[in-house]
Amino acid sequence: MSTKHVEPTEPYRGVRDFYPHEWSTLTAIFETLRKNVTLWGYEEYNASPLERAELYESKTSEEIVSEQTYTFTDRGERRVTLRPEMTPTFARMLAGKRREVPFPVRWFSIPNLFRYERPQRGRLREHYQLNVDLAGIEGTEADIEIIEIAAGILKAFGAEDKDFIIRVSSRTLLSAACKAANLGDARAREYIRLLDRKAKMTAEEFKAESSALSPVSPLDLIVNKDATIMPEKQELEHILEELAKRGISNAVFDPTTTRGFDYYTGMVFEVFDTDTRNPRSLFGGGRYDNLVSLFGGDSIACVGFGMGDVTLSDFLETHDLTPRTNDAPFLYVGTPSKDDVPAAQLFAKSLRDSGVSVLVHIGGKSLKDQIKEAVRREITYFIVFGSNETNSDSLTVKKLSENTEEIVSKENLSEYLTRD
Amino acid sequence: MSTKHVEPTEPYRGVRDFYPHEWSTLTAIFETLRKNVTLWGYEEYNASPLERAELYESKTSEEIVSEQTYTFTDRGERRVTLRPEMTPTFARMLAGKRREVPFPVRWFSIPNLFRYERPQRGRLREHYQLNVDLAGIEGTEADIEIIEIAAGILKAFGAEDKDFIIRVSSRTLLSAACKAANLGDARAREYIRLLDRKAKMTAEEFKAESSALSPVSPLDLIVNKDATIMPEKQELEHILEELAKRGISNAVFDPTTTRGFDYYTGMVFEVFDTDTRNPRSLFGGGRYDNLVSLFGGDSIACVGFGMGDVTLSDFLETHDLTPRTNDAPFLYVGTPSKDDVPAAQLFAKSLRDSGVSVLVHIGGKSLKDQIKEAVRREITYFIVFGSNETNSDSLTVKKLSENTEEIVSKENLSEYLTRD
Repeated sequence: MSTKHVEPTEPYRGVRDFYPHEWSTLTAIFETLRKNVTLWGYEEYNASPLERAELYESKTSEEIVSEQTYTFTDRGERRVTLRPEMTPTFARMLAGKRREVPFPVRWFSIPNLFRYERPQRGRLREHYQLNVDLAGIEGTEADIEIIEIAAGILKAFGAEDKDFIIRVSSRTLLSAACKAANLGDARAREYIRLLDRKAKMTAEEFKAESSALSPVSPLDLIVNKDATIMPEKQELEHILEELAKRGISNAVFDPTTTRGFDYYTGMVFEVFDTDTRNPRSLFGGGRYDNLVSLFGGDSIACVGFGMGDVTLSDFLETHDLTPRTNDAPFLYVGTPSKDDVPAAQLFAKSLRDSGVSVLVHIGGKSLKDQIKEAVRREITYFIVFGSNETNSDSLTVKKLSENTEEIVSKENLSEYLTRD
Repeated sequence: MSTKHVEPTEPYRGVRDFYPHEWSTLTAIFETLRKNVTLWGYEEYNASPLERAELYESKTSEEIVSEQTYTFTDRGERRVTLRPEMTPTFARMLAGKRREVPFPVRWFSIPNLFRYERPQRGRLREHYQLNVDLAGIEGTEADIEIIEIAAGILKAFGAEDKDFIIRVSSRTLLSAACKAANLGDARAREYIRLLDRKAKMTAEEFKAESSALSPVSPLDLIVNKDATIMPEKQELEHILEELAKRGISNAVFDPTTTRGFDYYTGMVFEVFDTDTRNPRSLFGGGRYDNLVSLFGGDSIACVGFGMGDVTLSDFLETHDLTPRTNDAPFLYVGTPSKDDVPAAQLFAKSLRDSGVSVLVHIGGKSLKDQIKEAVRREITYFIVFGSNETNSDSLTVKKLSENTEEIVSKENLSEYLTRD
């Protein structure tokens, strides 16, 4: 139990408050994600962060369900989990409408996800994650589409191929290599988990654990192009060749890429920042052809990825690609006195009706302080609307960013303000 | 404990899955909300649905904290609540940056909120709610702005004044009337809660409970224009007159309007549907000048409202104002065989780069089935991209909605598709 003093204005531990400036940056990032995925014909879905706890049991790795989720019991004795990932929700919803929706299904979502863990850089208790999934296509063309979309998103923010690397492998290939090395299913799963941890181990540590699991190293079989596993290797090579033809020069084969979840069945990939200041895994995904059938019915071939907002924001920050936003209104209408407010609001209404965002000063400050406030808020234009302006056909429009002013007729004001 | 069988594809009880068609309607509604509030210079903020449970203690009515919230204890012995309303979060965040943000503060948010209650029409366990708040202005001009925004939103969806009624009252006026009737603070609070329930009682029931609380009826004092409470009445009349001048003909004084929460201090309002098929309270709000100071520091005058998505959607449905949406891609690129996919994807890339959303068929279905699929998805345009098209300078473009076709040069295709 923590005894640290908590300020009453602080949020709950490990989650974020989004003040307008921060939220406006994040929604600009979300808009770029949304736009790029809809260009491929993907449709947005959503669901509640509350899920029945059973959804995660036997579908994800045990560690996550038991220790890393927020799970509680409601007053009706139902066990509820705050979703730690979106893929089980996607599979559940898809299974529920498998007879109604046209296939293939291309869906995406930008949910918030919850994990109960010690807050640290890039690993908050709540984060947002773009989830993109394609269901109903077995062939490599679907794997290629998913990787192409993922790479295209980073490029849409202004990143270049040299800024990130896409490491691709295949669970099918890994399984074939484990089989060729005479590992049973349980040992093969253990070996795949060992590979997942390889980057965090010394070469000696890895070798020791690997030898203990299997006298013949499945990784060596892959690297040395063992004949028995070549068909699986060729499929992966086709994916990489095709990506190169489509202008993606930074996708490479990396047999140590496995992804954490047990549900992956085929191609898996993980994207890394190449910048030495932020040499992290950014996001990844893969093929999971058996998940939907856990909810009943036949298997449905699925492939997808999840891209978290915190690691993405770090990447954009590192490469100076964070979108610049300004959520201030466009025009500040100053009022010489409170008596001028009703007429100013009526005038503002006509501008709002034509799509101009207008803040009218209603607080009775001096005009000097009103201009100061408008500048501080980074509002583009400023006008005064008092009795003179009520009775006149024209107004003086200040462009605050350039410290210029111009006389404009009331009639043309909305056109003038939106002329760029 | 429920023994009802739960299908594995069902969501948790009382929350909603949003399939693409449903989510696209809801996001179109959100966009109308967002657009209309930003036209007034309001900036969007957000926060986590997880809040420290203390945030709600002594700040909202006790019933809500104790019985109607999702509250649980985390592994660090911290009590966590899934936010049941946004106003305490707004007040907390505002208090946290009161020395940094420029006043007045105009903020809005569209959070999801959680209540633990029996699911019934319009009262789910999770819903979305637009929250609009203006802080730092004591005068009636702020009350008027908030009501004008609220009414403007319904009109932006196409509603007319006759479709809804805005019932306005004042906690100041009610308190003055209770004082004139010689009620102490505790009895006055009880009386205000009684008024809040008046619409659900018979006239006799109300009269009996009212007489038991107070020999002199505060409501009668208001209706009979008792001299001691007239100053408070005048303020309210000014608000109604000013709203009428700004074209809002459907705002009326209703002394039985109180709103549920204890934190209201001044003007309160509630909007009702006038349609007899849906004669419900739609949403409401009011002034709460003392809430922010509970987090430390001086009081900050605040006024705002909250508009829930479920009641709003019911209103739009009742009046046939639900926005029509189509989230299908714009162009379907048919492929005669899987071998044609790479060239088709390369061609699609050039269209996507110019902003056209394109779905490329990668599944190997017959062209006839591909056209059927495109029609079912309500996609506007269809082209075939095979070896003929790869080697030609032009393409046949089918407009599926009108069953017409035209030959268009590849070079001009994106311009042709987006010409409207």
